[in-house]
Amino acid sequence: MREAKPVSGNGRKGERADHIYRVAAEIMCQKGFEATSMKDIADAVGLTKAGIYHYILGKEDLLFQIMSFAMDMVDENVIAPARQVPDAEQRLRTIVERHARRILEVGGAVTIILEETPALTPAHRRIIRERKRVYFDLLRQTLEQLAAEGKLRAVSPTVASFSLFGMITWISRWYRSEGEMKPPEILRDFVEIATSAVLRRG
Amino acid sequence: MREAKPVSGNGRKGERADHIYRVAAEIMCQKGFEATSMKDIADAVGLTKAGIYHYILGKEDLLFQIMSFAMDMVDENVIAPARQVPDAEQRLRTIVERHARRILEVGGAVTIILEETPALTPAHRRIIRERKRVYFDLLRQTLEQLAAEGKLRAVSPTVASFSLFGMITWISRWYRSEGEMKPPEILRDFVEIATSAVLRRG
Repeated sequence: MREAKPVSGNGRKGERADHIYRVAAEIMCQKGFEATSMKDIADAVGLTKAGIYHYILGKEDLLFQIMSFAMDMVDENVIAPARQVPDAEQRLRTIVERHARRILEVGGAVTIILEETPALTPAHRRIIRERKRVYFDLLRQTLEQLAAEGKLRAVSPTVASFSLFGMITWISRWYRSEGEMKPPEILRDFVEIATSAVLRRG
Repeated sequence: MREAKPVSGNGRKGERADHIYRVAAEIMCQKGFEATSMKDIADAVGLTKAGIYHYILGKEDLLFQIMSFAMDMVDENVIAPARQVPDAEQRLRTIVERHARRILEVGGAVTIILEETPALTPAHRRIIRERKRVYFDLLRQTLEQLAAEGKLRAVSPTVASFSLFGMITWISRWYRSEGEMKPPEILRDFVEIATSAVLRRG
């Protein structure tokens, strides 16, 4: 079986591939995954149908590549920096602020696509599920540390983690770059809302 | 054009139809909307393919009926009772508590299906979008009233409304009835998290 090459955001092919992933995610969010054809995507990025197969093996592979691209961004921009922060309260802020900022910057389509798991092969589904689990565990462990320090509200760290996760992910459904509110204001309000939701205030 | 009959939860046919909607929503969430056939649904509810067409005109109509069923539940169980509550803080609690409880009771599939709007006809999409807007406006007006009363945190009522909405909707993605935590505990923690997110505490 031919393997799709993992592409990073650094190389020349990587940037082109990243662009294809973003555009493809936007088309899929608008039309629905099933209704989107490889031709729709090729047309939108100015490639021939043969050209686009240089980057991807087919629609399922493309979906998996988009999800992997989304999770790579979370790894690089959220998880890795958060792991550098020993203080739990600061780590929570880092996670919330960096993830929300990333969705506002990149646009929500690649985040929404992360829900399309039924269309993946079982092997790909396991890989994506495991990567989501790693992220969720980081958030939950952060809230468990806050609970041990007496800084978490009197709530289950699990319910709190899912609630934060839902709020963050949902930004991808409502933020419109052409809207009145700009990312810095949204981000400031959002971080206030998310941290107030779970942190006990002195 | 044949019109699908609006079905209420009260009549005999209504209950049967409601059951079909819930089961169909669960199958669609597992397999994906496109991959789900009318036969899958007929088999799951013990009807012949001819029998199921007594209730629905086809897959797009079924999707629209499920969404209408979900919005009927929100109307009856959340919006109507909330409109009876003059005090904004109490109304906010009513909205959060009743909507979260409903998702925990009914299961999340019908809520998740509400995101499948690309598969609707434009006319059906407008109807569902308008019903969601009515609900969103109730939530935002409640937060605007709280802001006027000095009870909202120093955040935009719009960002706060979307954040609450995301947290509530997201319950449908993580709650499992076979999990360790039971609905009353989840609900208590969730209401605490959601109200703390937006309310200034004295």
